[in-house]
Amino acid sequence: MSLKQQLIDQVIEAWHSLQDKVPLVQCITNSVATNYTANILLAAGASPAMIDNPFETEAFTKISSALSINTGTPTTEQTQAMLISARTAQQQQTPWVLDPVGYGAVLRWRSETVDQLLNFKPNIIRANASEISTLAGNQTESKGVDSTLNSQDVYEQAKSLLQYSECIAISGESDFIISKQLNTVIQVNGGCYLQPKITATGCALGALTAAYHAVSTPTIAALASHIHFAIAGNLAYEHAQTVGSFNVAFLDYVHMLDDNLIRQYVDIELL
Amino acid sequence: MSLKQQLIDQVIEAWHSLQDKVPLVQCITNSVATNYTANILLAAGASPAMIDNPFETEAFTKISSALSINTGTPTTEQTQAMLISARTAQQQQTPWVLDPVGYGAVLRWRSETVDQLLNFKPNIIRANASEISTLAGNQTESKGVDSTLNSQDVYEQAKSLLQYSECIAISGESDFIISKQLNTVIQVNGGCYLQPKITATGCALGALTAAYHAVSTPTIAALASHIHFAIAGNLAYEHAQTVGSFNVAFLDYVHMLDDNLIRQYVDIELL
Amino acid sequence: MSLKQQLIDQVIEAWHSLQDKVPLVQCITNSVATNYTANILLAAGASPAMIDNPFETEAFTKISSALSINTGTPTTEQTQAMLISARTAQQQQTPWVLDPVGYGAVLRWRSETVDQLLNFKPNIIRANASEISTLAGNQTESKGVDSTLNSQDVYEQAKSLLQYSECIAISGESDFIISKQLNTVIQVNGGCYLQPKITATGCALGALTAAYHAVSTPTIAALASHIHFAIAGNLAYEHAQTVGSFNVAFLDYVHMLDDNLIRQYVDIELL
Repeated sequence: MSLKQQLIDQVIEAWHSLQDKVPLVQCITNSVATNYTANILLAAGASPAMIDNPFETEAFTKISSALSINTGTPTTEQTQAMLISARTAQQQQTPWVLDPVGYGAVLRWRSETVDQLLNFKPNIIRANASEISTLAGNQTESKGVDSTLNSQDVYEQAKSLLQYSECIAISGESDFIISKQLNTVIQVNGGCYLQPKITATGCALGALTAAYHAVSTPTIAALASHIHFAIAGNLAYEHAQTVGSFNVAFLDYVHMLDDNLIRQYVDIELL
Repeated sequence: MSLKQQLIDQVIEAWHSLQDKVPLVQCITNSVATNYTANILLAAGASPAMIDNPFETEAFTKISSALSINTGTPTTEQTQAMLISARTAQQQQTPWVLDPVGYGAVLRWRSETVDQLLNFKPNIIRANASEISTLAGNQTESKGVDSTLNSQDVYEQAKSLLQYSECIAISGESDFIISKQLNTVIQVNGGCYLQPKITATGCALGALTAAYHAVSTPTIAALASHIHFAIAGNLAYEHAQTVGSFNVAFLDYVHMLDDNLIRQYVDIELL
Repeated sequence: MSLKQQLIDQVIEAWHSLQDKVPLVQCITNSVATNYTANILLAAGASPAMIDNPFETEAFTKISSALSINTGTPTTEQTQAMLISARTAQQQQTPWVLDPVGYGAVLRWRSETVDQLLNFKPNIIRANASEISTLAGNQTESKGVDSTLNSQDVYEQAKSLLQYSECIAISGESDFIISKQLNTVIQVNGGCYLQPKITATGCALGALTAAYHAVSTPTIAALASHIHFAIAGNLAYEHAQTVGSFNVAFLDYVHMLDDNLIRQYVDIELL
């Protein structure tokens, strides 16, 4: 069996495990994404909990199956919670995913928090191309929190980030997954041009990656979540071609995905 | 006329009062629920206002017709606001509803806040089965903010909570309402399995209970809000069987509910 | 060419500029509106970023094309961010829009913040009739954050606010736009009765006004955003007459608006 086929089989296995285990995923996320992220996790099969205060976060990370940290709209209290939870996750070997939203020269406060969070070795870093490039030490022009670079132009740069994390996932028109476990880069095709027109899809993808990591390895988790979103995006677009209706259909297909749909629609390449 | 029929008539009267009076409902709620809760209250006929800072909350509670407090994602400032508003509501005899999201041994900080809030005698406590059981003094295994217990297994335990509150409402596959005013427990049937797949439905139900309490007694308020959601859930599911579309249809039917639909679809039992 | 026709042409030009330039709009907004506002801005053609902490806001305002400040659910940190960003916007001549949600005697803390914000001369003030009337020095009865007055009854009062701002926009069943640049008041008709049944539509309208102001004058920006919402509301209502479905269709039409639809459906009067 080819490596590609093995990966697809493991993604399907991860999807089944997600349904069986309904892992508890702690999300420390931004004010834009919180409702949407919870709905995506519920639809996909996980159990989300948005515990983001510094007084409860250590105890909660200890009982969580995975942790997702997203720096979209940090407050002082959330920043404290992020650092406590990341440390706790590392100590407890709880899988955790970092989504360094807005990382760059302009938004220094959160970027310094991200630098500290990297010390707690996130198992997966998921971000857009601009954020990944900046994290990898390049100076990129930021335009707020949306990417100004293409994902395919930065995946070589991303390899340097494997010093911090076992797996790097870069979202874009195609997504790219780089991992210590594999000698190859995986390209995930699919999704639709309307997805970036809906706020917080990337943030929810980070949380879904954490959910999958509760039941699989970093590489398979990143691959499964990106395939999940790519297929749901394709099927939703067949159903609805306008942004509001697409958003509704996208949630429908995030929930309706199953092993048959994965096998039928998965589109990955090993580079 | 049977007690059951009397209760249904009073629910219909409460629904009419809600439409006539459009009560101002102050909500101190969590970051996941805030938009959804406001939309549910508007759709149902109330006027929501999410005033949750400690500098304004006393003055605002004084002009509000009801108060809803939900401990889903508390911040320090929100916690201060909760305590001030609960005290103010008790002093002013403003109806108020407590939704102790996440109450339990793991999330101690909020649970201590809930313990303090109980001193201000919420008129209604609305929660899921795990939270009610823990509030009633039992040790339950928590899985984040979702219940691990069935509502029908805990309503006997809930009776002890009548020392704090006039009415206890427990949501689940069927809902159970316990009240000082009645010698019977009321079971509310309806809704659909997709409702727990949408985040913040329970939170919005707590706020809707507060809205109804602005225009009726605690028992009728709890009964009306749970019937409102149960029927809207049933009708929405007839219209849409996938989670995203169901969510849209649910809001439609929360808005379209009227006395005829209540009479036609209400399904309650006196235990 | 009549003034009315000139204005419509400039609105269409502004819409094209918005699509071409995709301006970065910083939003400091409330917890109810954040997700909805971001989705509206994305659908309309802008690039939103909800940067609302005091540690990053000065640097971010400096790179933003426009700033939107909304006082719906202020926290201490957000309030600090508002004051820093407003000052920065004034210094840098970055267009900025103030939406003084809840302004009035009851909610004093935010109202004092609004008073301070006025010193930084917002280019546009956008609000409902109650807020505008109170800002203009009248004592109005507040009912939370929803208006108790009609927009057509207060536009004369609003003229006194031109001491603070170049343009005042009052939303309601019809909207009214008052500007230093014009000797006339512009009335914008359209929209539908379901819009106030959806939370945060006014808040999102304020942010969209800021987005248009990144590419046009205050008068045209206010006119364009209000026409954008009025037409999208009309077309959405033709498509969907229930509140949940209308909300989805509204986002669809905010995205699908184009020059032909503006010409076909625009309904303004010069008073």
